Amino acid sequence: MNKCPSPESGQAGKADSCKGCPNAEKCASAKPDPDIQIIRENLTSVKATVAVLSGKGGVGKSTISCNLSRSLASKGFRTLLLDFDLSGPSIPRLTNTLDHFTPLDDGSQRLSPLRVGTNLYTLSVGYLEGLEGPVSTFNTSTKNSIIKNILKMANFEDIDIMIIDTPPNIVEEHLALVNYMKPLSAIMITTPQNFSINDVRRQVSFCRKTQLPIIGVVENMKSFICGHCSYENRLFGRSNVQSFCSELSLPYLGSLSLDQRIARNSDEGVAVDDPLFDHIADHVITATGI
Amino acid sequence: MNKCPSPESGQAGKADSCKGCPNAEKCASAKPDPDIQIIRENLTSVKATVAVLSGKGGVGKSTISCNLSRSLASKGFRTLLLDFDLSGPSIPRLTNTLDHFTPLDDGSQRLSPLRVGTNLYTLSVGYLEGLEGPVSTFNTSTKNSIIKNILKMANFEDIDIMIIDTPPNIVEEHLALVNYMKPLSAIMITTPQNFSINDVRRQVSFCRKTQLPIIGVVENMKSFICGHCSYENRLFGRSNVQSFCSELSLPYLGSLSLDQRIARNSDEGVAVDDPLFDHIADHVITATGI
Repeated sequence: MNKCPSPESGQAGKADSCKGCPNAEKCASAKPDPDIQIIRENLTSVKATVAVLSGKGGVGKSTISCNLSRSLASKGFRTLLLDFDLSGPSIPRLTNTLDHFTPLDDGSQRLSPLRVGTNLYTLSVGYLEGLEGPVSTFNTSTKNSIIKNILKMANFEDIDIMIIDTPPNIVEEHLALVNYMKPLSAIMITTPQNFSINDVRRQVSFCRKTQLPIIGVVENMKSFICGHCSYENRLFGRSNVQSFCSELSLPYLGSLSLDQRIARNSDEGVAVDDPLFDHIADHVITATGI
Repeated sequence: MNKCPSPESGQAGKADSCKGCPNAEKCASAKPDPDIQIIRENLTSVKATVAVLSGKGGVGKSTISCNLSRSLASKGFRTLLLDFDLSGPSIPRLTNTLDHFTPLDDGSQRLSPLRVGTNLYTLSVGYLEGLEGPVSTFNTSTKNSIIKNILKMANFEDIDIMIIDTPPNIVEEHLALVNYMKPLSAIMITTPQNFSINDVRRQVSFCRKTQLPIIGVVENMKSFICGHCSYENRLFGRSNVQSFCSELSLPYLGSLSLDQRIARNSDEGVAVDDPLFDHIADHVITATGI
C-alpha cells in the first residue's frame, strides 16, 4: 500500500513511496501546477497562515480556531477564520452566520470574506453548499478543486492573518494546504486521552515531513468543574499532554476545561471569554512575526 | 460544484448531479464492478452488517461500537468489530490489540479476523498500517481499493454480525460500504450539542438517499456526574436529541453520561459495563432479524 505524496506535491514521482508506482514517471515529469502561482499571488498581502489541526474529531478544534481568531482581531490584526472542513464545516454555527450564503461568483469573479466583527472575517465552505441540505461527499479531486477555487477567487487583500480550521486526521484538505500555502504553520489541539495524543503524534510526523512549523499544542477538556460543588473533575484520568510535548520538543500552550459555558456559547455562536485565547494569540504573533 | 455519486455506484452517470459532467456518458455505460460480486459472495454467511455513524468526530462512536460488539458477543452472536476509519483507526487501542499486526497475505490470500474474546473478533486497518508510524493519507481510489481488498480477502465464514466503526462525516468509506455491503443498516451517535445533531441530520439524509435503514440514535455525553458530590451536570445545556428523533421518526435508543470510568476504560481497552449497550444490542437483534 503506497502512500502517494499527491500528484501536485513537489515530491510527486520522486518520493520513496513512488517507487514501483505505474504513474511515477508521469508524475515526476509533470509540469508544476500553474494554479499554485495564481494562489501565491492572491495571498501576497496575507502575512501569516496558521492551520489548526487535531488528530481526533470532537476535541474542540473549531471552537479554539474561532476564539483564537477573535483574540487576534481584538489585538488589531485583520483576521480571516477560514473553514476548510469540507465534509463537516462548523464555523457558520460558531460565528452565528448559518444564514449567510456566499455567491460563488458575484460578477467580479471574487469571493468576499464575510465581516463578522471588528477586524474579523470568515469564509466557510458551509456558506457555499448549504449546511443541512444535500449530502456533501466530495471525492479527492473535487475537494482539491474547491480548495483551489477558494484560494484563487477569494479576496484576501485586507487580511493580515488566516486561521484555518481543518478536518480531523490528515486528509486531502491538509495536503492541499501544504501544497498551496506558504508560509504556513500549525497549532495542534488534543484532549488528555491517549487516543487523542496518539493521533496528534501522527500529525506531528506529517508536519515534520512537510516542513510545517508547529507553533504549539493546546490541551482541551482537561477537567470539568462541577456546577454544584465547583470540584475540578479530571475527565480522562492523568494527562500526558505536557510530557508528550516535552518528548517531542513542542511548546505546550496551555489547557482549557470542558465548560458548560464554552459549550453553550459555542453552540449559540457567542464568544468565549478565556485568557488562554489571548495567550495562544500572543504565541501565534511571536511565532509568525506578523 | 457537482456531487459525484462515485463511479462505482449504481447511479454513476445517471444521477441528476451527473448532468453536464464530462464523464457522465463514460460512467453511465461502465460495466458493473466485478469485485462487488466477489465481495457479496465472501459475505454470504454474515447475517447482518451495521454501520455506526456520527456526524461529528469525538462523540464516542468507536467506544459505543466496541461495547455494542461486546454485548452482541455475550448474547451468543459471533460478532466482528470492523474498523473502517482509514484515516484514524481507534479500535486497536479500544480492544487493547495495539501490538497486533495482520499479515496482508498469509499465503492463503485470506485475512483472518483477530479473536479478542468469546464470539468476539476485530479487524482494523490499524493492524495493517502501523498506528503511530507513517502518516496515512490515502486518496479516494486508494481508500476504495483498501476497503475492497479487506472485504474480498477477509475470512468472514464464522461471523454472524459485523459492527462497522466508520469515520466521522460522510466520506469515501461510507460510499464504499453502501456500494459493497447489502444488507446494511445504521446506528447514529450524537452528543446533545446542536452542532452534532445538525451533522447527524445530514447523515440521515444520506441514509435515506441510499436506502440505508436506520436502527436508531444513541445520545452520548448527555451529562457528567461529579466525582465529588454526584451532582448530574448537563454538559451542553438542554438536549434536543429526543425531539430531533421524533421530528425525523427515528428510534431514540437511550443516552450515556460522560463518565470518567468509560473514558479511562476505553483508553485502556477495558469493557464498559453499562446496561445501555445490552439495550442497543437488543434493538440491533430485532431490527436485523439475526
